[in-house]
Amino acid sequence: MIKIYGKNLVREAILNNADLKDIYISANETKLMALLNDKKLAYKVVSKQELDNMFGKGHQGIGAFRADYKTYSLDYFYTNEKNKRVLLLDGINDPQNFGAIIRSVDAFGFKGIILGNNRSVPITSVVAHVSTGAIEYVPICYTNSLLAALRNLKEHGYWVISAEAFGKTKIADIDLDRDIVLVIGSEGFGISKTILKESDYVVSINMKGHVNSLNASVSAGILMEKLM
Amino acid sequence: MIKIYGKNLVREAILNNADLKDIYISANETKLMALLNDKKLAYKVVSKQELDNMFGKGHQGIGAFRADYKTYSLDYFYTNEKNKRVLLLDGINDPQNFGAIIRSVDAFGFKGIILGNNRSVPITSVVAHVSTGAIEYVPICYTNSLLAALRNLKEHGYWVISAEAFGKTKIADIDLDRDIVLVIGSEGFGISKTILKESDYVVSINMKGHVNSLNASVSAGILMEKLM
Repeated sequence: MIKIYGKNLVREAILNNADLKDIYISANETKLMALLNDKKLAYKVVSKQELDNMFGKGHQGIGAFRADYKTYSLDYFYTNEKNKRVLLLDGINDPQNFGAIIRSVDAFGFKGIILGNNRSVPITSVVAHVSTGAIEYVPICYTNSLLAALRNLKEHGYWVISAEAFGKTKIADIDLDRDIVLVIGSEGFGISKTILKESDYVVSINMKGHVNSLNASVSAGILMEKLM
Repeated sequence: MIKIYGKNLVREAILNNADLKDIYISANETKLMALLNDKKLAYKVVSKQELDNMFGKGHQGIGAFRADYKTYSLDYFYTNEKNKRVLLLDGINDPQNFGAIIRSVDAFGFKGIILGNNRSVPITSVVAHVSTGAIEYVPICYTNSLLAALRNLKEHGYWVISAEAFGKTKIADIDLDRDIVLVIGSEGFGISKTILKESDYVVSINMKGHVNSLNASVSAGILMEKLM
């Protein structure tokens, strides 16, 4: 089980018929209470103080225990749909960034996210909260070898676009009428050499500032929007 | 004075000749020490433990006390340059988002950021840290009235583009050969009605997911990149 809290996150879990246990709600949250009644879900009305104790300050009047988020295998990405989009994160440590990226993956219609078991944050309560509920709709696949996963995706027809500051290609110059894996590196270390070698294109985002680097969730968002 | 810590942030402060006092560094950080010597700045070599105590866990081997970041008045945005870009944030509470936005403002060559004194996070150590040093190059203007500021910018020739989910205009359809203020609303409440009324265009980002909302720093980044 995982603790979930916050209006958007818990609402999406309810709407998505997630397996919820022990739902706690503040007496003020009449809208969410109506939704719970509608869905015939039992809940307990508790004080703000009790919610604070159980879920920390960010609960916004509701919290619950949810069955762990299901994770997916690579097979999930092998369908007959055309122009599929998948995001592969080569290392991500910051739960805030991971949550924000999950929102973007949902917003831009990507099929899901592939991460390595090493060097990646798991799906924690914070990640789910920051995703504002998008986590309910974004399949996430953890794998032991990102390299093996990438090769497998290529065998299944995916093209690989990696994002690095030194990338020479612009997305506008790439034929997007195909299945694409977008690879984003970790904030500190970028994309591993072995992963870069498997890339069909290395793209960059035009910048003209002093520091010339973007937050990982911002660069992921900018590129996903262009690939949508 | 404000505490600053982390390699990128302190390095940019040094390079930008910021007024630094009491610089503390770990013995391992030979590159940064060379830079400090080069700039003839005094520093004290301390243990990781001492850095932890003074600056918390995120110090990466260096911390210092810096003169408060200078803030700017609106006049700063009235220059003879062509096609100036300014970001106006109608409410922002999350220091992570604010820091990420400062990075993007620098990266995409915007002149600076305008915020209201109410409903906005100040420039804290966390904001500076998350900006990874971009804060050194991004002028920030706090104002008592965002509405008055916006009217003033318009009188000085700026066009106002606001971003809201219901926006009907696409940036691609706007003539960008002019001075532009991009307005981004707060995560919870969007853009105030009075600010929206002053907008020349209301734009949105195409989305096709379930939750259909982006992290504020992600939407700001996507739109700034298009306006660059």
